[in-house]
Amino acid sequence: MNKHGMLIILSGPSGSGKGTIVRQLLQERDDTVLSVSATTRSPRCDEQEGVHYYFKTHSEFKELIKQDALLEYAEYNGNYYGTPEEPIRQHLLEGKNVILEIEVQGAERIMNYRSDLVTIFITIPTMNELERRLHERGSECEDTICKRMEIARRELSRAFRYDYVVLNDEVPLAVQRINTIINAESMRYSRMENYILEVVNNA
Amino acid sequence: MNKHGMLIILSGPSGSGKGTIVRQLLQERDDTVLSVSATTRSPRCDEQEGVHYYFKTHSEFKELIKQDALLEYAEYNGNYYGTPEEPIRQHLLEGKNVILEIEVQGAERIMNYRSDLVTIFITIPTMNELERRLHERGSECEDTICKRMEIARRELSRAFRYDYVVLNDEVPLAVQRINTIINAESMRYSRMENYILEVVNNA
Repeated sequence: MNKHGMLIILSGPSGSGKGTIVRQLLQERDDTVLSVSATTRSPRCDEQEGVHYYFKTHSEFKELIKQDALLEYAEYNGNYYGTPEEPIRQHLLEGKNVILEIEVQGAERIMNYRSDLVTIFITIPTMNELERRLHERGSECEDTICKRMEIARRELSRAFRYDYVVLNDEVPLAVQRINTIINAESMRYSRMENYILEVVNNA
Repeated sequence: MNKHGMLIILSGPSGSGKGTIVRQLLQERDDTVLSVSATTRSPRCDEQEGVHYYFKTHSEFKELIKQDALLEYAEYNGNYYGTPEEPIRQHLLEGKNVILEIEVQGAERIMNYRSDLVTIFITIPTMNELERRLHERGSECEDTICKRMEIARRELSRAFRYDYVVLNDEVPLAVQRINTIINAESMRYSRMENYILEVVNNA
C-alpha cells in the first residue's frame, strides 16, 4: 500500500524555538523531510544550494512566479523568498511527509487555496518567557525585541487558522507532541481509505 | 485552565475487538470514562445498574425519549437501547473524555447533528482474519458467522463517516493508536484556544 505523504505547515513566533524543534524531529523521523525555499538573496558562507535554499537570480525567480511554480512567495528587503512546489510534490508522491517551516502570512496564503494540509502553530508558554528567550540570544537590541514581541502577539492572534497548537515548554516534549500529531494524522480516514477498500473487497 | 473533555465515538464490526481495546484503554487513562447505555432489557446476573447499563422500564424509557434526554436510541428484538445525554454532559464539563462504544447506525445518527466528536472506526486486518476470530469464539453457528461477515462488510463501507481508522492487528498496538489520536486531538486549536488567549492577553 503506497501511502501519500502529508504536507505539514509549521509556524510560530520568532523565539518559539521552531527551528530547533524541526531539526530534532527530522533526526527522529526518516519518513519526513524539510521543504527548501527559493530566494534571490546571496548565499552566506555556510549555506549550500538545495540544502538551505535554492539560490536564484531575480529573473529566474520571476520566471518561477510566472510559471506558477511556487506555493507562495513574498518580498522582504528587496529580495524574494518562496516555496517551490515541484520538490514537495515529488516527496509527497514518494510517501514522505514534507514540513514547511514558514511564517504566518505565508502559511495563510497556502491555506487559502490548499486543503490537504496539516497545520501546526508552535506557541511559547508566556510572553515573559518569549522576552527572556529573545534577550538570551543577546544579539538583539531592546528595540528589536520590542518589535519581535509585537509581531509575536499578532502571530499568536492568527493561531486560530491552524489545526493544532503545540506548546514549546521543553524542546523534547514539543517534538514528541508533533510526532503524536503526525502519527494520529496518518490514521485519518482519507489516508486509510485504500486500506479499508482492500479489506472490504478482498477475502 | 479547565479543559472540556472530548466525546469519542468508537465503532467497529463485531469481532474487531473494540470491547477489549476499550477496557485496556480505560485502564491506562484516568482522564477517560465509558458512556453507559440505557436499556429496557432485563439485567443478566452479573450486570450492575449504572455500570453495565441503566436499566429502565418501557415507560421510563419512553419518557426519556419524550424529554429528548437521549443522544440516540434504537429498538432491537422488542427492547430499547439508548445513550443518555446528561451523564455524558457532566463528565465532559468535568474535563473527562467520554467514550461511546456504539454500532455504526447509532454513531451516524449522532454524527448527523453533533460536530464536537472525535470518531474512530476500528478495523480488522482482513475479512479472513475476522472469520477466524468469529470461529474462535466457538459459540456461533456457520449461519450466524456468515451474517456477521455480511454486516461487517456493510459497516466497513461506512468507515468514511469517521475521522480516524484504527487497525486492530494486535490489541496493545490498537490501544496505543487510540491513545495517540486522543493526545493529538487534545492539541486541536479549538481545545487550545483558551491557552493561546491567556498567552496573548497576559504578560
